[in-house]
Amino acid sequence: MDPSTTGGGRRGLTAAAVPDLVAAARDGRSRAVGRLLSLVEDESPLLPEVMRTLAPHVGHARIIGLTGAPGVGKSTSTNALVAELRRRGDRVAVLAVDPSSPFSGGALLGDRIRMSDHATDSGVFIRSMAARGHLGGLSWATPQAMRVLDGAGFDVVLVETVGVGQSEVEVAGHADSTVVLLAPGMGDGIQAAKAGILEIGDLYVVNKADRDGASKVRRDLRSMLALAERPDQAWRPPVLMTTAASGDGVAAVVDALAEHRDWLTATGELERRRVRRVRDEIEALALGALRRRWEAVGSDGRLDRLARAVVAGESDPYAAADSLLPDA
Amino acid sequence: MDPSTTGGGRRGLTAAAVPDLVAAARDGRSRAVGRLLSLVEDESPLLPEVMRTLAPHVGHARIIGLTGAPGVGKSTSTNALVAELRRRGDRVAVLAVDPSSPFSGGALLGDRIRMSDHATDSGVFIRSMAARGHLGGLSWATPQAMRVLDGAGFDVVLVETVGVGQSEVEVAGHADSTVVLLAPGMGDGIQAAKAGILEIGDLYVVNKADRDGASKVRRDLRSMLALAERPDQAWRPPVLMTTAASGDGVAAVVDALAEHRDWLTATGELERRRVRRVRDEIEALALGALRRRWEAVGSDGRLDRLARAVVAGESDPYAAADSLLPDA
Repeated sequence: MDPSTTGGGRRGLTAAAVPDLVAAARDGRSRAVGRLLSLVEDESPLLPEVMRTLAPHVGHARIIGLTGAPGVGKSTSTNALVAELRRRGDRVAVLAVDPSSPFSGGALLGDRIRMSDHATDSGVFIRSMAARGHLGGLSWATPQAMRVLDGAGFDVVLVETVGVGQSEVEVAGHADSTVVLLAPGMGDGIQAAKAGILEIGDLYVVNKADRDGASKVRRDLRSMLALAERPDQAWRPPVLMTTAASGDGVAAVVDALAEHRDWLTATGELERRRVRRVRDEIEALALGALRRRWEAVGSDGRLDRLARAVVAGESDPYAAADSLLPDA
Repeated sequence: MDPSTTGGGRRGLTAAAVPDLVAAARDGRSRAVGRLLSLVEDESPLLPEVMRTLAPHVGHARIIGLTGAPGVGKSTSTNALVAELRRRGDRVAVLAVDPSSPFSGGALLGDRIRMSDHATDSGVFIRSMAARGHLGGLSWATPQAMRVLDGAGFDVVLVETVGVGQSEVEVAGHADSTVVLLAPGMGDGIQAAKAGILEIGDLYVVNKADRDGASKVRRDLRSMLALAERPDQAWRPPVLMTTAASGDGVAAVVDALAEHRDWLTATGELERRRVRRVRDEIEALALGALRRRWEAVGSDGRLDRLARAVVAGESDPYAAADSLLPDA
């Protein structure tokens, strides 16, 4: 391997070294995967080169989103799901996205400890990621990170988000299948109230099934799902019960995910979701590039100045938009 | 007035006639206001001219959003609010946005009948609007329509939306103050669940206060709001009770709106909200223009083709985004 890819940290990396780094990641070397993800987090100028190199290898991983309010047992559930997927022979990458945190490196160690069951398993890769990049946050960084893990050859990419409103919905938009976790004793109304959870789940899991009230949560959720159902809805999300801490019910969740996967493939919905997702990704990248141009003019930001002029009645939105656009 | 602005319907309108049309709208002529709104709905090529002409007159109206699930009494509440605002001497425009409907003209008559209390009052203007324009729906058409009504000299623009998820949030983003309506017997959990209503209200109103369960809705809502409260939250949304059909409590809502308005002004939040709103508006217009360019190439849409190539592993999102962008 070119020494420039191994020595001197990220700064030493050059475009010429990207193919070796990608090859190392695809060989299953965690450190290389981690470095590629750092390039995403750092919004490295090498990313276009990385993505170009990964392109032929992308599209094989099953992308599973896992979301739910704090306290429902997300990390325990992730842990249990990873164990079950490993049992079935899948290489699994976990991307824990925390949209409320501008930091990422710090959480990494915590996650490794948390997931210590898998610490010595080279078929499992775990990474925490902050999602607050200035290029547009979640909508920008998460798909790039997913693309890296997919291209690195993992069979399953599990994207876990802390449930904080809009970000759940965004992550759901990026996954092939989205699992929404709930638990008894959390104030069900509140849980469901957060960011229209009823609309994003392909699969609902009531965790802590051994606790009082778990059946009630399932019952309430089923009524709410029935009320929220759209006439054109072809997939009816099942509501399963787990006790992630003991592993009870987790195999059934993986089975249900496989069923959803089959449905996605058979109906062509998988292709549709992926094209839609990539469309959004391309638009986000193009818009991000344009925003940087718009905001780069003057320290105040060109867009802000234009907006203030419109608010002051000195201009109008059309003239402002027009002045942002290059000639056709 | 130039005959081209009065005869022959919208098609006869020329850019030269726009100033007269705007002047007529500002003189309080409902028909002229209606024609300007039709230009918005039709995505007329004259809009840039209209907005340029309106620009110096915009920014005086108080923009109030009113949202809530079907059945909570939105139209009755709008009616009662309009009556109270008229009593206080305000000229009021109502924009009823239905994001689920591609039609608009049809609803107009229905609204006029519905609001028949104000049918003969020239200080009240009512218009239903579909929000599904191909230029980006709600985010595009609603702010333009609000701008027309603001520029036409109304003191208050009441934007009423049917509560269908994401659109509520979008409308809230466009208003100075957002009123969220609830009512007993609607399944409170479900109501709140829809699109994170807890995060968008500046003011909550439990309507049908004379019915059983109204106090419980208020109590539950208050608990939910307390739970959802952010530490940096400077304004605590009051929860009021009304019986819109009899007018009970409606004056208190208008008082609370005035209080919120004072808070907005005193804290500078009004200016911040408006700059943010206009920023979004400019971006939406610029992005809309770019999307049209991107989608215009080939019947399939250039963006779709690029997305399919990326999904197929033949390209990557960066290269795709790059090919969309003009040279800097």
